[in-house]
Amino acid sequence: MRLLRFHDEDGTALPGLLEGDAIIELEGDIFGGYAATSRVHPLAQTALLPPVVPQKIVALATNFIPHAAEMKKAVPDEPRLFLKAPSALIGHRAPIRLPPHVGSVEHEAEAAVVIGKRARAVREEEALSVVFGLTAFNDVTARELQRRDGVFGRAKGFDTFAPCGPWIDTEALWDELLLECRVNGELRQSARLCEMIFPLPRIIAFVSRVMTLEPGDLIALGTPAGVGPLQDGDTVEVLLEGVGALVNPVRAG
Amino acid sequence: MRLLRFHDEDGTALPGLLEGDAIIELEGDIFGGYAATSRVHPLAQTALLPPVVPQKIVALATNFIPHAAEMKKAVPDEPRLFLKAPSALIGHRAPIRLPPHVGSVEHEAEAAVVIGKRARAVREEEALSVVFGLTAFNDVTARELQRRDGVFGRAKGFDTFAPCGPWIDTEALWDELLLECRVNGELRQSARLCEMIFPLPRIIAFVSRVMTLEPGDLIALGTPAGVGPLQDGDTVEVLLEGVGALVNPVRAG
Repeated sequence: MRLLRFHDEDGTALPGLLEGDAIIELEGDIFGGYAATSRVHPLAQTALLPPVVPQKIVALATNFIPHAAEMKKAVPDEPRLFLKAPSALIGHRAPIRLPPHVGSVEHEAEAAVVIGKRARAVREEEALSVVFGLTAFNDVTARELQRRDGVFGRAKGFDTFAPCGPWIDTEALWDELLLECRVNGELRQSARLCEMIFPLPRIIAFVSRVMTLEPGDLIALGTPAGVGPLQDGDTVEVLLEGVGALVNPVRAG
Repeated sequence: MRLLRFHDEDGTALPGLLEGDAIIELEGDIFGGYAATSRVHPLAQTALLPPVVPQKIVALATNFIPHAAEMKKAVPDEPRLFLKAPSALIGHRAPIRLPPHVGSVEHEAEAAVVIGKRARAVREEEALSVVFGLTAFNDVTARELQRRDGVFGRAKGFDTFAPCGPWIDTEALWDELLLECRVNGELRQSARLCEMIFPLPRIIAFVSRVMTLEPGDLIALGTPAGVGPLQDGDTVEVLLEGVGALVNPVRAG
């Protein structure tokens, strides 16, 4: 099942279920009770929103060994967590805006897990039971500000620096997924999620021992090697094979 | 005016207006339209909640020169921003829980500003117009994890690591305020907000150029020198003179 959020003709944000090229409008809460309506919207002409409105976006700083190497970071023995600002979220096809005077702004293609139920200190063995689904995510980063500030709030927190979507796939098996990033069609990043330093159940168990996870919360699972700059006019695609392809144009200012 | 949130006898979260020792129950949204009801609750017997439910909690890493010195950090020429997890928020008198096996957990007394209206790239001269009010905040931090992780998501993100309240004062003038922290009645931190490296209008202008601020968002303004460990059984008080005193017991696990 593929669930998403979209703007209808009046600009109202609504939940939807993807069936082929059609969005079936839903009523209710995808994490509570919901039902299909008779209203159908064509995918190609509908503006998609980030598929969830999370209380928080937790992200992993280093979760692929080749990316640790390119960033000159040691391979961690525990997940290193930071938070992204929910105000940075944008959906499929919305533009990433390059702020003026910040230096290199880079793509970091990631898979993100959407939490389906409140979770506190779940055990690894039960961790997948709190997963609602998977989606593609781009942890856009102003690299020079990240190095200068040391802390990540600004470098990773600009509006539009958290593209997410296009939808949530509730059936994909995380450890079979291939993650790729293309800029203007050219392959820049590629890895399988089974290559992550910390597998998904361990990440969920670890994060939930720190902070209570709520339905709709996102955990971005870390980026493979190959991060690099985005320029005005570029198109960046984060493909989570079998789930979906998140495409965003890049614009100055 | 002093506004707060509280649990009524049924455990329903409600907004309230403090008048002396009484809480006047409100209906509506303190950032939109609201009205007083005829229901009154005694402050002393009412469980207070964090005064807002923010989309995000932005915090400043270094905003007092003596604290920069004690942390062996350079005095920054721009605010260094990080995010706290909203799931860490607790209200006045709720216990701070010390997680097992994390080493020293420390108090960081702060003032926090509550944003009153959506703000994007506000100018310094207009920045105070988006302020709803001020409240006390404790940026509780697992110091060893902060150093080990480098990123702050875990060290500052545990549940209960963001005490906030007891209420929002909408009339206090930030640059006249004294901030103090006491542990078991003993003074540990003391500074005036006018001693901050970055004054409040500059902080709001800076943050709002990065990320759109929403009504209810919190910006924690940084801690003075004197941070130190909390132990099971301690009581920690963050006093924002003329605004209120945020008191929290400290409990193991």
